[in-house]
Amino acid sequence: SATTNIAITPGDGIGPEVVNQAVNCLALLRQRFKLDLDWHPFPWPSHRWHQQHGESMPADALEQLGAFDAILLGALGDPGPVTDHNRYLLSDSVSLAPLLQIRKGFDQWVCERPARLLPGARQYLADDRARDIDMLVIRENSEGEYVSQGGRLRQGTPHEVATQIEVFTHFASERIIRYGFEQARARAIRRQQHHQTRQFQTLDGRVCDSQVCLVTKRNALRYWGDLYTEVFERMSLEYPDVATHHELVDAACMKFVQSPWAFDVVVASNLQGDILTDLAAVLSGGMGVAPSCNLNPTDPTMPSMFEPTHGSAPDIAGQGLADPTAMLFTTARMLDWLAHKDPIMAAAGLALFEATAADLAQHGGKRRSTAEIGAAVCARLKA
Amino acid sequence: SATTNIAITPGDGIGPEVVNQAVNCLALLRQRFKLDLDWHPFPWPSHRWHQQHGESMPADALEQLGAFDAILLGALGDPGPVTDHNRYLLSDSVSLAPLLQIRKGFDQWVCERPARLLPGARQYLADDRARDIDMLVIRENSEGEYVSQGGRLRQGTPHEVATQIEVFTHFASERIIRYGFEQARARAIRRQQHHQTRQFQTLDGRVCDSQVCLVTKRNALRYWGDLYTEVFERMSLEYPDVATHHELVDAACMKFVQSPWAFDVVVASNLQGDILTDLAAVLSGGMGVAPSCNLNPTDPTMPSMFEPTHGSAPDIAGQGLADPTAMLFTTARMLDWLAHKDPIMAAAGLALFEATAADLAQHGGKRRSTAEIGAAVCARLKA
Ligand SMILES: CC(C)[C@H](C(=O)O)[C@@H](O)C(=O)O
Ligand SMILES: CC(C)[C@H](C(=O)O)[C@@H](O)C(=O)O
Repeated sequence: SATTNIAITPGDGIGPEVVNQAVNCLALLRQRFKLDLDWHPFPWPSHRWHQQHGESMPADALEQLGAFDAILLGALGDPGPVTDHNRYLLSDSVSLAPLLQIRKGFDQWVCERPARLLPGARQYLADDRARDIDMLVIRENSEGEYVSQGGRLRQGTPHEVATQIEVFTHFASERIIRYGFEQARARAIRRQQHHQTRQFQTLDGRVCDSQVCLVTKRNALRYWGDLYTEVFERMSLEYPDVATHHELVDAACMKFVQSPWAFDVVVASNLQGDILTDLAAVLSGGMGVAPSCNLNPTDPTMPSMFEPTHGSAPDIAGQGLADPTAMLFTTARMLDWLAHKDPIMAAAGLALFEATAADLAQHGGKRRSTAEIGAAVCARLKA
Repeated sequence: SATTNIAITPGDGIGPEVVNQAVNCLALLRQRFKLDLDWHPFPWPSHRWHQQHGESMPADALEQLGAFDAILLGALGDPGPVTDHNRYLLSDSVSLAPLLQIRKGFDQWVCERPARLLPGARQYLADDRARDIDMLVIRENSEGEYVSQGGRLRQGTPHEVATQIEVFTHFASERIIRYGFEQARARAIRRQQHHQTRQFQTLDGRVCDSQVCLVTKRNALRYWGDLYTEVFERMSLEYPDVATHHELVDAACMKFVQSPWAFDVVVASNLQGDILTDLAAVLSGGMGVAPSCNLNPTDPTMPSMFEPTHGSAPDIAGQGLADPTAMLFTTARMLDWLAHKDPIMAAAGLALFEATAADLAQHGGKRRSTAEIGAAVCARLKA
């Protein structure tokens, strides 16, 4: 059908609270832009569902979700009541497993996390050039360190050996690196359209208007480090207009703090991307504002999943204190993504992005409740 | 013999420049404290040695170094002349291999990197509580992600699969975690001696005067994440006076930026420790001031290795611009470590630490040459 259908999975902790605000905004946008848009809430995956049914989501969960055009997820993870001596062993892996199952099930091989320090967002760095942070961290989301292969030998004994196997294919390395180059080009074009420019120098002295920085740890993790590097090197010849750069993950973290404004597009493996995106998120205002999405750009029949970078924050859950800004930016990105189904969605996404950004610029830093922030953004959408 | 012998390996790039300043200080300290101390320089491991001999160090290098009480290393790594299109493939792995060989050969299973934001050091964070950063990051230095196991199947083809195997033993996990708890206790005692206190709350409301934070990524890297967590949990019962805490590596990086002053001792795996120490180093003043050491605390016949966290910085090598402060702090730590051989070394180490810190407090932030900084510290040692 022509209707765009969204599966809404609020999840645990602050998830439902921030998702509520996103749904209010979606309702307004549907009206204002006459979107042929519908959504359906799911009580799973969640900790509560797990308690009631012994599993985080039903056996046919992926089948059910597969019927939708996108998944909007709040947050997962609920450690339950903790004491000082059981908390390390409480398996948050149980509640988080569905996240990885959904990413894998729909081959959402790109995790895209833009980091811009928007006006009103908290600035953690002393250097005022931090205001110019504007990077896109692209994380390989389908393999690598997250294949869950390995095991424990002689578990629980003094002779235990735990192995964890990282698996990287040329197939997935190439598609994520190519995606990085394509995004770099797209960003340069968007800047041009807005009469902005950025300049990145290549080692041989040429100046480009975009850059891709590849991150690995190839001096210690040789095998996939060399694979990534060779693919990157070869592909860079196809994109002479994009400056290329290579950082080791430890140096990249350091440079994210020293000069984050110097990065444009960053491509990293699943785990290193996980680390770099959290770091980029805090440097550009913190978890309260950091959007994220898990995309399958190659198969339009598979839903992509949109979830803020933050977790379920059990410490503040249920108190109406969570900042829904990250969720609203994430929802805006979802609408923009859905433009491939219906071009009008892009306009709705832009409206939501702009309303959220304007609210942040005006009130960022003030203490407001989840509902207050949501209502303020809604008011802007109505105006 | 009673003489304490140090192998000095200046290495590549800025290594020899900063090592020179350390040697000047050692000469002064030997005189002032009447140390029975000697040192011997080695032209290897280095890029130049590799060019001349086809290997970074002689076949009997470990045997030669094994005769010394400690190794003082400048920095390794020389990418050679680079062009835009060969640089990714130039294997820095060649020049860095000896570092890992030495760590492994002498079972230097602890990498200890203190992070304190000393007066005069550059403050990257906007929040002024950053002045209170005082943590010790302890990195497992003998196994884990750095075992170099794995390989490349169908290398260079579109069907390539690269695997990288991480191996963690109970043996090494337990010793590094125990080392963390012991250091936490030692730090609390040292604070007491200086009439300082810090307070860390446990989840069940008790207040301790030290803390160990374990870092893993156990929600995605289950096998060793669970091993580390179980060992940590069990051992915490032996140290009820030390507060315990667990962070996932992505959240840890975020919290290093948000509230680094809240950490005391941090224990992490080889790769995650590599990332966290670079991040901690920049947050506490940058690579110019960050000391580091690779210790074998269990076998006194094996030399430990002392090297600053920074690399060989080929971009500024040979210009006399490198800051030797990190090298001098590292040398001070070496002398302190050698107190197990000769207690007077501790006094010499303290003198060098204090002279270097005083110089940093007075001149930090000014542009000075390597030689100027070294001379200023020497002047203080003579005074
Ligand atoms: C919850 C966890 C498994 C997840 C990940 O590591 O991918 C999270 O940190 C994220 O970044 O989405
Ligand atoms: C050079 C490299 C192999 C090394 C490491 O990763 O251990 C370095 O980054 C360090 O931290 O000493």
